[in-house]
Amino acid sequence: MDSVKPKPEELKDLSIESLGERTIPSPIEKDGSLYEEDGNGVLVYSQWDQVQPFLKKEKPPMFETAGPRSRLYFDPAKTTCGIITCGGLCPGLNDVIRTVTLSLQWQYGVKKIWGFRYGYNGLSAAPFAEPKLLSADIVDGLQHDGGTILGSSRGGQTPGEMVEALLKYNINILFTIGGDGTFAGAMDIADEVKKRRLPISVVGIPKTIDNDIYCAETSFGFSTAVEEARKAIYSAHSEAKAAWNGIGLVKLMGRDSGFIAVNASLANSDVNICLIPEVRFSLEGENGLFSVLEKRLNRKHHAVIVAAEGAGQRHMSEGPERKKDASGNIKHKDIGLFLKDKIAAHFKSKNIPVSIKHIDPSYIIRSGPANAFDSTYCLMLGRYAVHAGMAGKTNMFVGYWNHQFTHVPLHVAVHKRKKVNPHGDMWQTVLETTEPVS
Amino acid sequence: MDSVKPKPEELKDLSIESLGERTIPSPIEKDGSLYEEDGNGVLVYSQWDQVQPFLKKEKPPMFETAGPRSRLYFDPAKTTCGIITCGGLCPGLNDVIRTVTLSLQWQYGVKKIWGFRYGYNGLSAAPFAEPKLLSADIVDGLQHDGGTILGSSRGGQTPGEMVEALLKYNINILFTIGGDGTFAGAMDIADEVKKRRLPISVVGIPKTIDNDIYCAETSFGFSTAVEEARKAIYSAHSEAKAAWNGIGLVKLMGRDSGFIAVNASLANSDVNICLIPEVRFSLEGENGLFSVLEKRLNRKHHAVIVAAEGAGQRHMSEGPERKKDASGNIKHKDIGLFLKDKIAAHFKSKNIPVSIKHIDPSYIIRSGPANAFDSTYCLMLGRYAVHAGMAGKTNMFVGYWNHQFTHVPLHVAVHKRKKVNPHGDMWQTVLETTEPVS
Amino acid sequence: MDSVKPKPEELKDLSIESLGERTIPSPIEKDGSLYEEDGNGVLVYSQWDQVQPFLKKEKPPMFETAGPRSRLYFDPAKTTCGIITCGGLCPGLNDVIRTVTLSLQWQYGVKKIWGFRYGYNGLSAAPFAEPKLLSADIVDGLQHDGGTILGSSRGGQTPGEMVEALLKYNINILFTIGGDGTFAGAMDIADEVKKRRLPISVVGIPKTIDNDIYCAETSFGFSTAVEEARKAIYSAHSEAKAAWNGIGLVKLMGRDSGFIAVNASLANSDVNICLIPEVRFSLEGENGLFSVLEKRLNRKHHAVIVAAEGAGQRHMSEGPERKKDASGNIKHKDIGLFLKDKIAAHFKSKNIPVSIKHIDPSYIIRSGPANAFDSTYCLMLGRYAVHAGMAGKTNMFVGYWNHQFTHVPLHVAVHKRKKVNPHGDMWQTVLETTEPVS
Amino acid sequence: MDSVKPKPEELKDLSIESLGERTIPSPIEKDGSLYEEDGNGVLVYSQWDQVQPFLKKEKPPMFETAGPRSRLYFDPAKTTCGIITCGGLCPGLNDVIRTVTLSLQWQYGVKKIWGFRYGYNGLSAAPFAEPKLLSADIVDGLQHDGGTILGSSRGGQTPGEMVEALLKYNINILFTIGGDGTFAGAMDIADEVKKRRLPISVVGIPKTIDNDIYCAETSFGFSTAVEEARKAIYSAHSEAKAAWNGIGLVKLMGRDSGFIAVNASLANSDVNICLIPEVRFSLEGENGLFSVLEKRLNRKHHAVIVAAEGAGQRHMSEGPERKKDASGNIKHKDIGLFLKDKIAAHFKSKNIPVSIKHIDPSYIIRSGPANAFDSTYCLMLGRYAVHAGMAGKTNMFVGYWNHQFTHVPLHVAVHKRKKVNPHGDMWQTVLETTEPVS
Repeated sequence: MDSVKPKPEELKDLSIESLGERTIPSPIEKDGSLYEEDGNGVLVYSQWDQVQPFLKKEKPPMFETAGPRSRLYFDPAKTTCGIITCGGLCPGLNDVIRTVTLSLQWQYGVKKIWGFRYGYNGLSAAPFAEPKLLSADIVDGLQHDGGTILGSSRGGQTPGEMVEALLKYNINILFTIGGDGTFAGAMDIADEVKKRRLPISVVGIPKTIDNDIYCAETSFGFSTAVEEARKAIYSAHSEAKAAWNGIGLVKLMGRDSGFIAVNASLANSDVNICLIPEVRFSLEGENGLFSVLEKRLNRKHHAVIVAAEGAGQRHMSEGPERKKDASGNIKHKDIGLFLKDKIAAHFKSKNIPVSIKHIDPSYIIRSGPANAFDSTYCLMLGRYAVHAGMAGKTNMFVGYWNHQFTHVPLHVAVHKRKKVNPHGDMWQTVLETTEPVS
Repeated sequence: MDSVKPKPEELKDLSIESLGERTIPSPIEKDGSLYEEDGNGVLVYSQWDQVQPFLKKEKPPMFETAGPRSRLYFDPAKTTCGIITCGGLCPGLNDVIRTVTLSLQWQYGVKKIWGFRYGYNGLSAAPFAEPKLLSADIVDGLQHDGGTILGSSRGGQTPGEMVEALLKYNINILFTIGGDGTFAGAMDIADEVKKRRLPISVVGIPKTIDNDIYCAETSFGFSTAVEEARKAIYSAHSEAKAAWNGIGLVKLMGRDSGFIAVNASLANSDVNICLIPEVRFSLEGENGLFSVLEKRLNRKHHAVIVAAEGAGQRHMSEGPERKKDASGNIKHKDIGLFLKDKIAAHFKSKNIPVSIKHIDPSYIIRSGPANAFDSTYCLMLGRYAVHAGMAGKTNMFVGYWNHQFTHVPLHVAVHKRKKVNPHGDMWQTVLETTEPVS
Repeated sequence: MDSVKPKPEELKDLSIESLGERTIPSPIEKDGSLYEEDGNGVLVYSQWDQVQPFLKKEKPPMFETAGPRSRLYFDPAKTTCGIITCGGLCPGLNDVIRTVTLSLQWQYGVKKIWGFRYGYNGLSAAPFAEPKLLSADIVDGLQHDGGTILGSSRGGQTPGEMVEALLKYNINILFTIGGDGTFAGAMDIADEVKKRRLPISVVGIPKTIDNDIYCAETSFGFSTAVEEARKAIYSAHSEAKAAWNGIGLVKLMGRDSGFIAVNASLANSDVNICLIPEVRFSLEGENGLFSVLEKRLNRKHHAVIVAAEGAGQRHMSEGPERKKDASGNIKHKDIGLFLKDKIAAHFKSKNIPVSIKHIDPSYIIRSGPANAFDSTYCLMLGRYAVHAGMAGKTNMFVGYWNHQFTHVPLHVAVHKRKKVNPHGDMWQTVLETTEPVS
Repeated sequence: MDSVKPKPEELKDLSIESLGERTIPSPIEKDGSLYEEDGNGVLVYSQWDQVQPFLKKEKPPMFETAGPRSRLYFDPAKTTCGIITCGGLCPGLNDVIRTVTLSLQWQYGVKKIWGFRYGYNGLSAAPFAEPKLLSADIVDGLQHDGGTILGSSRGGQTPGEMVEALLKYNINILFTIGGDGTFAGAMDIADEVKKRRLPISVVGIPKTIDNDIYCAETSFGFSTAVEEARKAIYSAHSEAKAAWNGIGLVKLMGRDSGFIAVNASLANSDVNICLIPEVRFSLEGENGLFSVLEKRLNRKHHAVIVAAEGAGQRHMSEGPERKKDASGNIKHKDIGLFLKDKIAAHFKSKNIPVSIKHIDPSYIIRSGPANAFDSTYCLMLGRYAVHAGMAGKTNMFVGYWNHQFTHVPLHVAVHKRKKVNPHGDMWQTVLETTEPVS
């Protein structure tokens, strides 16, 4: 209800690559009804006015429906799998590691599952640490722990060395858990695998606390993040009210997409100004931040500001030399500290006393255990990834759309991000329940 | 992904009643893009194999798309509204009261909003207590509090006296927050209103902690309930492991639908046996509860059982005299206490020492504040209800389907409940991660 | 500030038994200042008017000061220890197991530590399960988990068979974690050990969620319990307010002592009637429960009642046949259910509609992880117990008094319990902030 | 068990000032036993070896026992009171405001209670905002909210203008809630009042999240702070383990005293290095921070560091110009950011990759609601303050010592702070369970 819908022209090629014919009967049959075969799909558009135009000429765009296939490409008895977690922490990583391990082992009977250490670094020619064998014992109780038992990192390995590492450990299916940077790496691996004609499947599991994976309605960890972010806003509100002209300023995650900021602001409902990357705002001017804030302080003598990490970056850019982190993401300057300084300077120049409390809860938000929703979601997500991998699907990730799990080609979510729709109902609700700046 | 899909023949009449022509321009326009008009709809089915059969002959079934209309039936300046909360507590009730009040007042400019006290009783000829006027001040901070400031009850009033009460307070729009019993009452009111040709709109806001409202993907309070239920399961697991042949038995809400039990069992992942109303099980026999439990205890010496309220009712029925509560729901016997006694007796008869800890967290689960997801959801839901009411929609409730808010006729959700699909992926996952009984 | 002070005549013999001369130099010296020797003590009374009368004739009563001794009775290299957890669950059990293990292993260099399973049953001739060897690896992270990894039970073994079990495993120091029933068993073991002149030390670590260990100011788990109990009261308040004449009735732990009820009632401050074992109350009569409750309902139309488990037992006794549980505790009838029925019947007889919600959070309260206070307290407590054991102290437990850890003979806390002082400031505060019944 | 004991020479004058004769009978008598009269005291020392030396010559040092007096100095019917909250937020502030208000109103019958706004600023000649009248209605439910409804600030008013403000509102008793800076201000007011021979009592209620009030065993908010700090350490541990050579660095409150750091480190037990103001450490050298950290990383590849705010300040001082905040406290440079930079630079210079995550949870810790312990403690503390004020005690604060509430002259706690005892058992336990640096 809240994000920019993908455009038809972006959805031209939603077909899923396969390693080859599926000849092994699946061992998981309990109830025929569970099997899902390839012809079916989940409609991308489910509003009548969006889907109708397609109906005259062709099938409307759809994502392949996820689910266990009745026949597998890989013979479980001879299959070895690898799991890798990349990028920043996100609640639910351990849940996914656990469920992928258990599903492979218990549902399919896969014997050997390697957990590569510290992200793609674990696939480098000289990794920090050797992979560890995963099993039911090792992953027992993991759903109650934050973090990742495999470790993570931001990458930098070549596809060549990563494929060599997969060969060294005889990996047939590699599950990569990460965001769009990780998926770019996964595509590189899949391409290299294809070039070498290797029977290795690469399956992505979308992980982004920002909830910005393209063509995935919900990312695991996001719900937990909003819950924790709400607490930080509570603190900011408490601090703001306790001081004369108190300003509680919370920086939340959201490099390119303000979903956490939007949802936490709505959930908490004590936010007065919400800034996200998708919506431009000025500092100066009649509807600029300073003016709006000043009017608010004059009226109530306290204010709560929530700023997503990527908001207002243009105000901080001096010169062209924007740095990138090890994942290739542009390194943002810190909007929280920037605003703190600018706001302080502004009110000092006007001789208005203010008391600014800046809260950056990012590490606390992302490092805890998953909430119930995310734990359940991770459990299902991991199982669908295993179904896809065993069926020989590759170069794809498991998405979620219209209440159903889907298969999406990796290329769809690389170099593109889901964004808050500034014309959507959630952002409009933010505008109506806070003081808009522009 | 988890519930029984509605059948086409149940979706014949999804059209929404209207009080009359909409002649008043809406005051909320900020951004043309937000307005939603009546012709559009959200497809009920979004899988290609389900939607395709319809395409040849007719429009596929769809729910009217919710949203603010550009023109209103009611003139805000002359409109008086009423809000009522019915049935058992549910996290988010106060959020909905707050958001309906604020949306009426701030978005539309409605001046008078009555909060009727203690459910439909507040509409009886001699109510327990007079209604209270709601305003921004009164509802300030309510999103942080469990319960309902209006009070609730299970009804018993006649449509006649309820309509009289509405007339006494000049109510134009009545927002009724409740489950299928409440909706039956709301339909009675709407029918009486129609008979009398009164300009009163009746808008339902679905509230059911069990998540069993038909044609609504998610009910508010459900996410919070699962979170809390998970904690009770943690306790049961802790208790079970601490005793030789320890059995932790958790009774969860779920009169007719086991969604809380299913989701909490999956989220927690320490559950060994999960019993829901939708799936029949035996006590005796090779795959019956006693036998499965005994095998589990022999192997691990502890077990966690989760039973939804409505599970296994047939084992407790003696004679035809099933009682009903004041809402007309059949009063269930207590499956938790029943199983506790039966299990104790069984193992005693076999001379196997067991230690059973029975936990019933129902009141604790339902009486707390909403989690972040539910708070945001309530905020949006309440606003959509207000849009519908101001547009003169009536005899309907606000649903949520395929990630979008919808309008659904009340009759669709009366005398029918959404159920866990025993052939769906979530229940299958329960079966694979627990010890199935049958 | 809140409990009945021990009487001088109960404190005649506070001397601590020792197995023999301490000849082994302690390996833990880092900083001379830490060692504590036997001559010192912590005054039982620290108010001037209580301590002054003693000063003329003799030393005032005091508890031996706990702490590491510079010389040990046991040579760590040759010492084997046992740990046992008895009775009901209590937050912090795992913390104590962890800290005793780590202190023995890391501070003193003890190599072999047995964890006996399922309480004293683990010392019976035919235990449920073999003991498990404890080590730093096994106890890693235990401070975050509720329950007890050793399991627990309520006993029934003879001193003879328990001492045989200790001999079988070459135990030199037995750490028993439990309440007054457990301490009675520990005394029996210590007596049997003495009779047989064995070099086995028996050290108690007081565990009682009720906080009723005599001569110990605070028991671990109590602080956590009060925290959780407060949440249950929140629920009861929420439920009570939501119904006309709503009554939220919370049964809390407290067999003989109402500390949890008192502290949770004060912490929550939404309680209207608080019932504890130490204070007699009537059901009927002008100041009896029914009358006070009725007046309250007439005034406010909702009420919250907190009843400690052992409150009002006299109202339930019919005949002399009170049962005992496996620990020898008199089995209480359920005051919660009793009051629920009686209150319902009373108001029914007067034709006053009420809605009673009964909440029994006991298992949820006791099975979770310890809060920060209890975790720290357990950490210290376990270390002091280890110091005492290594010094050859026996037949004693580690207490806490006037902000310092102490040694207390077991006999002091057997067959006696710490009680809420009905003339103390906390109970008086309860009386002033609730509606007293009598 | 953990702090530096006050020295006898610091305890020479523990007598409490009084405004004059107490002639009004107290209205609160319910039970004679509650009254406490002036002759009694709580021994400062309760270990025999500390108290014995005094017994030959004189009374040992003691704090006057707190409690309601049978006769009052102020006539409740004619008394007006003021409450003020100063300094940084602390969990429990609202609890204290609530309990002081309720105790004055309900126990004593005081009619008029002014809440001054924004700390001592509310007593300035031109305050930010007018005081607000407090009553049972206003403070209802406050025990569930963090922050302070009165607002706070760091002062700068002259005693003269503050006394004028008290006279303007006819204040008889001023309750000042704050730390040692606030107490210095309170002493100034009391001195000015004395000089002018006014019948105004000044009663301090110690508030310091750092737990550093001299001669007070526990400060409210501290327990809650440790609980929340533990969660931040959990996050740091999660982050540290997830990276190769991951370092989780948590800055906790503790300007001059490391109690939060010590207690949270012990409670969490995942901390590897703990730095507090009381214990000097080097960055370089064999046992310096860098070397110890490097060895730890070599062994385990992750580390958690906890640093109290005031730790290692000497490493940051360049030049003599240390700034002071508005309360007169020396402004510390940020040890967290300092260490982050220094550690990064050190390992960079040695070409060892590390990943440092710096967490500063201070505002989150201090702005939430009080936990159950603190809520109960605040309830009692506030009531004892009211008893003292009504009895005409002045220039004093309410302390807590040996499990009893006490009266302590303000001068005792001004310009002195309670410190962690580096030779005490808690710090020694930190040293044994972490990697000591020196």
